[in-house]
Amino acid sequence: MYKIVIDTKGSDKGAAVIVGGAAEAIKAQSDLYVVLVGDSELIRAECERLGVPSDRYEIIDAKDEITNYDSPTAAVFGKPDSSLVKGLEALSARDDLHAILTAGNTGALLAGTVRHLSGKDRVRPALAAVLPSSDGSFTCLVDTGATVDCPAATLHHFARLGSAFMKEIYGIDSPRVGLISNGSEPTKGNKAVKEAHALIAADESLNFIGNVEGNNALSGVCDVLVCDGFVGNQVLKVSEGMAKRMITDIVKYAKRTGNESIMQLVGHLLAVYDLGSLGGGIILGAKKLVIKARGTADEKAISNVCDMILNMLKCGQVFDKARNKI
Amino acid sequence: MYKIVIDTKGSDKGAAVIVGGAAEAIKAQSDLYVVLVGDSELIRAECERLGVPSDRYEIIDAKDEITNYDSPTAAVFGKPDSSLVKGLEALSARDDLHAILTAGNTGALLAGTVRHLSGKDRVRPALAAVLPSSDGSFTCLVDTGATVDCPAATLHHFARLGSAFMKEIYGIDSPRVGLISNGSEPTKGNKAVKEAHALIAADESLNFIGNVEGNNALSGVCDVLVCDGFVGNQVLKVSEGMAKRMITDIVKYAKRTGNESIMQLVGHLLAVYDLGSLGGGIILGAKKLVIKARGTADEKAISNVCDMILNMLKCGQVFDKARNKI
Repeated sequence: MYKIVIDTKGSDKGAAVIVGGAAEAIKAQSDLYVVLVGDSELIRAECERLGVPSDRYEIIDAKDEITNYDSPTAAVFGKPDSSLVKGLEALSARDDLHAILTAGNTGALLAGTVRHLSGKDRVRPALAAVLPSSDGSFTCLVDTGATVDCPAATLHHFARLGSAFMKEIYGIDSPRVGLISNGSEPTKGNKAVKEAHALIAADESLNFIGNVEGNNALSGVCDVLVCDGFVGNQVLKVSEGMAKRMITDIVKYAKRTGNESIMQLVGHLLAVYDLGSLGGGIILGAKKLVIKARGTADEKAISNVCDMILNMLKCGQVFDKARNKI
Repeated sequence: MYKIVIDTKGSDKGAAVIVGGAAEAIKAQSDLYVVLVGDSELIRAECERLGVPSDRYEIIDAKDEITNYDSPTAAVFGKPDSSLVKGLEALSARDDLHAILTAGNTGALLAGTVRHLSGKDRVRPALAAVLPSSDGSFTCLVDTGATVDCPAATLHHFARLGSAFMKEIYGIDSPRVGLISNGSEPTKGNKAVKEAHALIAADESLNFIGNVEGNNALSGVCDVLVCDGFVGNQVLKVSEGMAKRMITDIVKYAKRTGNESIMQLVGHLLAVYDLGSLGGGIILGAKKLVIKARGTADEKAISNVCDMILNMLKCGQVFDKARNKI
C-alpha cells in the first residue's frame, strides 16, 4: 500500500470535492491508502456516502484551516490545528506515510515543508512541474512560481534539485539540464541567467546542455528546465492559454464546417493538453513527496494527481535519497 | 504611394530572398514602392529577373553588411557603408520615405534607431510585436527582447510607448494596458513588476487594467501588454512552440485515423497560428516606422511583413505623432 496524506481544507472547491477525488482514486487504484486530514465528521459522512472501504482510509481531525488570505509563514506557525500543519506533522513523524497532497495555500505549503520536511540543513525548496514533452518523455520545469526573484546561485540550486529529482524518481541516469533564455548562446540572457549559465556549466555533477529557448521548452530537449519562478509561471500559463485557445478555435471550426469527426480530435486534444487537470506542482527539496494541486482542482483533477503521485512513488520508492544527493 | 526602405543584407537567407519578398509584395500591393539597399548589381539583376516594374523601386548601393556577429553599437558607428546604416540615414533624411524593414541584427537596428531616428531627446526604443488576440483584436506585446534587464521605470516607459503606438496606429482611444505577472493581485510579481504596477497605476495618461497572467496574454483582455524583454521573448516563443506542437500532433492524428478532412483544419490552423511567418518586430520610440523581420524570413514572410507595414501606415498615416505624445 502507498499511503498519501490528503489535506481536505484550503481548496477553492471545498472539502467534499477533495474527499470525492480521493474516493475516485481509491476506486481506481488498488494499492492506494489515504489519510484524510480535516473536519472528521464531514470526511466520514462523505466517505460512507461514496462507499469508500473503511480499510482504505483513516482520518486525522483538524479544526482549523489555512486559507489563501493567510500569510504563509505566520499561518504555519500560528495555526497548529490547521489541516495542512497536522498533515505535514504526520508525514514527518510516521515512516509508513509516503506523500502529502494539498490544494491549499502554496506559500504555506512551502513554509511548512521547510519547517517539517526539510531536515537539519533546511534546503530551500522549489516548486516544480513535471510536464509531458512532445516526444513522450517528461520535463521537470523548476521553478514555477515559488521564488520569483532569483539570483544566479538560486537558479544553480534549482538545477541540482531538478536533476536529483529526475534521477531518483524518473530513473534517468544523467538528466539533461537546460536553462531558459532568450537565445541559445551563453551570452544571451538577463544578468542572473548569464551568471547562472557559468555556475551550472562549471558544476561537474550536472549534465548541462546549455540555454533552451521558449519554443523548445516542452519539446523534450532536456529533462530539467531551469528558470526563476516568474518566468516558469509564464511558461506554464502561456502554454496552457495557447492550448486552450487553439482547442476553442478548432471547436468553432468544427461547428462552422459541420465536420463531426473533428469533435473526436477535440476529445483527443483535451486529453493531451488539458494541462490544468493534469497539473500538480511538486515541492523539490523535501524528505518526502510533497504535491500541490490547483486550488480549483475538481474531483477528477484530484484523482489524476493521486495517480501521478502513485506513479512517482512506484518509479522512485527511494524518494528521500533524492534530497540526500543534492 | 507608400515608400518602404528595405535592407537586403544581414538576413540568414541572403539578399535574393529579401528582394524576392519585396517583389511579391509589389505585385500584390498597387500602392507600394520600395527602396532596396545593398549590392546594386544583385538587386537590379533580381528585380529584372522577377519582372518588377522599374517605377516601383529604386536602389541605394551599399557595399558593407552588418552581420549577427557584429557588436551592435560598434557596427552602427564603424560600418557607415553598411546597408542598414545607409537605409536608416535615407529614412531619416528623406520626407518621402515612411518606414524601414530589415531581417538583420536586431541590436544594431535598435542602436541605429537611437542614432538616426530618435530625435533630440533620444527616447530609449523598445522592440514590440503586434499579435492577433483570440477575439480578433490585436495586442501589442512590449518588450519582446531588446531590453532583458528592466527596472520598474523602464517597464513604465514601455507602457507609455505601447499605449501611444496603439492609439496612433490602431486608432484605439484609450488603449487598455496590462502588466504580465504571476498573479492578478497587485502584490504578485517580482520586485520590478510590483514597483512598475504602482508607477503605471499612478500614471493618469494610461488606462491600466492591472496584472495579466500568462494564460490571458493573447486573449484580448488588453491592447498593450507590458513585460521585460526576457519574459516577452518567452511569451512569444512559448506560444509559437505550443502552436507548432499541437499542429504536429494534429497532423499525426490525421495520418493515424486516415481522416482527410482534418488536413483542411491543419491548413486553417497554419494560416492562423504560423506566428513565425506573421511576425515582424516593431521598434517603438522612433520617428518613423521601424520593422524587424525574422532572420530566417523567406520570401512569403518578407512579403507578409510588407503587407503589415502598409496596413499600419494606412491606419496611422501620422506615425511620428505617436512618438511626440510619449
